Amino acid sequence: MRAESVPEPTLRRLPSYYHYLVRLREKGQEMISAAQIGEDLGVHHTQVRKDLAVTGSQGKPKVGHRVEDLIVSIENFLNWNNVTDAFLVGAGHLGTALLGYAGFERAGVKIVAAFDASAKMVGKKIQGVSVLPMEKFPDLARRMHIGIGILTVPAEVAQEVAEMMVGCGVQAIWNFAPIVLDLPDEVIVENVALYSSIGVLSRKLSVHRKSLLATATPPNS
Amino acid sequence: MRAESVPEPTLRRLPSYYHYLVRLREKGQEMISAAQIGEDLGVHHTQVRKDLAVTGSQGKPKVGHRVEDLIVSIENFLNWNNVTDAFLVGAGHLGTALLGYAGFERAGVKIVAAFDASAKMVGKKIQGVSVLPMEKFPDLARRMHIGIGILTVPAEVAQEVAEMMVGCGVQAIWNFAPIVLDLPDEVIVENVALYSSIGVLSRKLSVHRKSLLATATPPNS
Repeated sequence: MRAESVPEPTLRRLPSYYHYLVRLREKGQEMISAAQIGEDLGVHHTQVRKDLAVTGSQGKPKVGHRVEDLIVSIENFLNWNNVTDAFLVGAGHLGTALLGYAGFERAGVKIVAAFDASAKMVGKKIQGVSVLPMEKFPDLARRMHIGIGILTVPAEVAQEVAEMMVGCGVQAIWNFAPIVLDLPDEVIVENVALYSSIGVLSRKLSVHRKSLLATATPPNS
Repeated sequence: MRAESVPEPTLRRLPSYYHYLVRLREKGQEMISAAQIGEDLGVHHTQVRKDLAVTGSQGKPKVGHRVEDLIVSIENFLNWNNVTDAFLVGAGHLGTALLGYAGFERAGVKIVAAFDASAKMVGKKIQGVSVLPMEKFPDLARRMHIGIGILTVPAEVAQEVAEMMVGCGVQAIWNFAPIVLDLPDEVIVENVALYSSIGVLSRKLSVHRKSLLATATPPNS
């Protein structure tokens, strides 16, 4: 199967499988069935089989897959054995939080430097990553051929910073700012709407509670 | 407009507007137009007007909205002036990161305690929030009427922990575990697929780079 023709939902599930398989390996488990993966991750087993098939991994009937083989197949398919260096811009709460999250390197992304417009942040080290002044971004990004920019700046400067990143050769942006970026089509953008997500959860809960109150009839009425 | 009939995309944009407006207020700006909001956040201005209309806020032609009024309208509409207490389960890297992110309280959610199965984590304080043993969850959640559970545990225990939460009265789950939770319909679930998102970004970038190489023809061929 050609790499580009893999369905997006499959692409989104493979990282979950990988994450899960790595934990199985850590526990010393050697074999796993598609059925078990499906049950543990809430995906139908036929879908798990289809998803794993794109990586070229062959399970054996009744025995399943070797955990190690599956890990290598997914790693190769996702091209995660080539770690890509990333620059993060915006070392506020969220940026700091992301710097502290070790899981990204497994997904082929390594944050090698952070940048911030505030003099208060510049010069700090967060989880071993230096916070540099914004002015250093262009020169360093070009010299280091940085492919990924992580955007954790406030909404009103996000577009401008994203354009600056792209102008310095960044090809993919992981956007946490709550705006829709307007960038050339060839730029890869992944949006994570953390703030909207918790806001919507909170709002839905309040609507849910109000409807519970509205439908609660006193026992004697 | 009835609260329940608001389109989901509007619901997802309102937190972004709010976040943006609060920052304008911090800078001392008093008035704002829908056109300017649209431009800064990458949303068409007619859509911004429709979105703001659901909150009941009335702008004036040519003058726009008072920033303070808009903030209050959105706050009231989203019911964010009632902060809901949340428990977080899984104080690993991601859980710790979320505890460090101050933005949630503005969205009406306050993380009041964290829980972890590991004895190494229990007893710690992260950003002023205590990490308690899992056994304490049921009793505390019931006594404190906890409405929101934040799930930052590994995939293979996420379903089990989510069921435990729901059994203790939790009505809404913010799920960061890379699985599809199977829960009763009345439970509100918001999924944030952080790990898939960065994985997909990394994968798309590698495909993009390969295609650049494939189409790069030497000048003399």
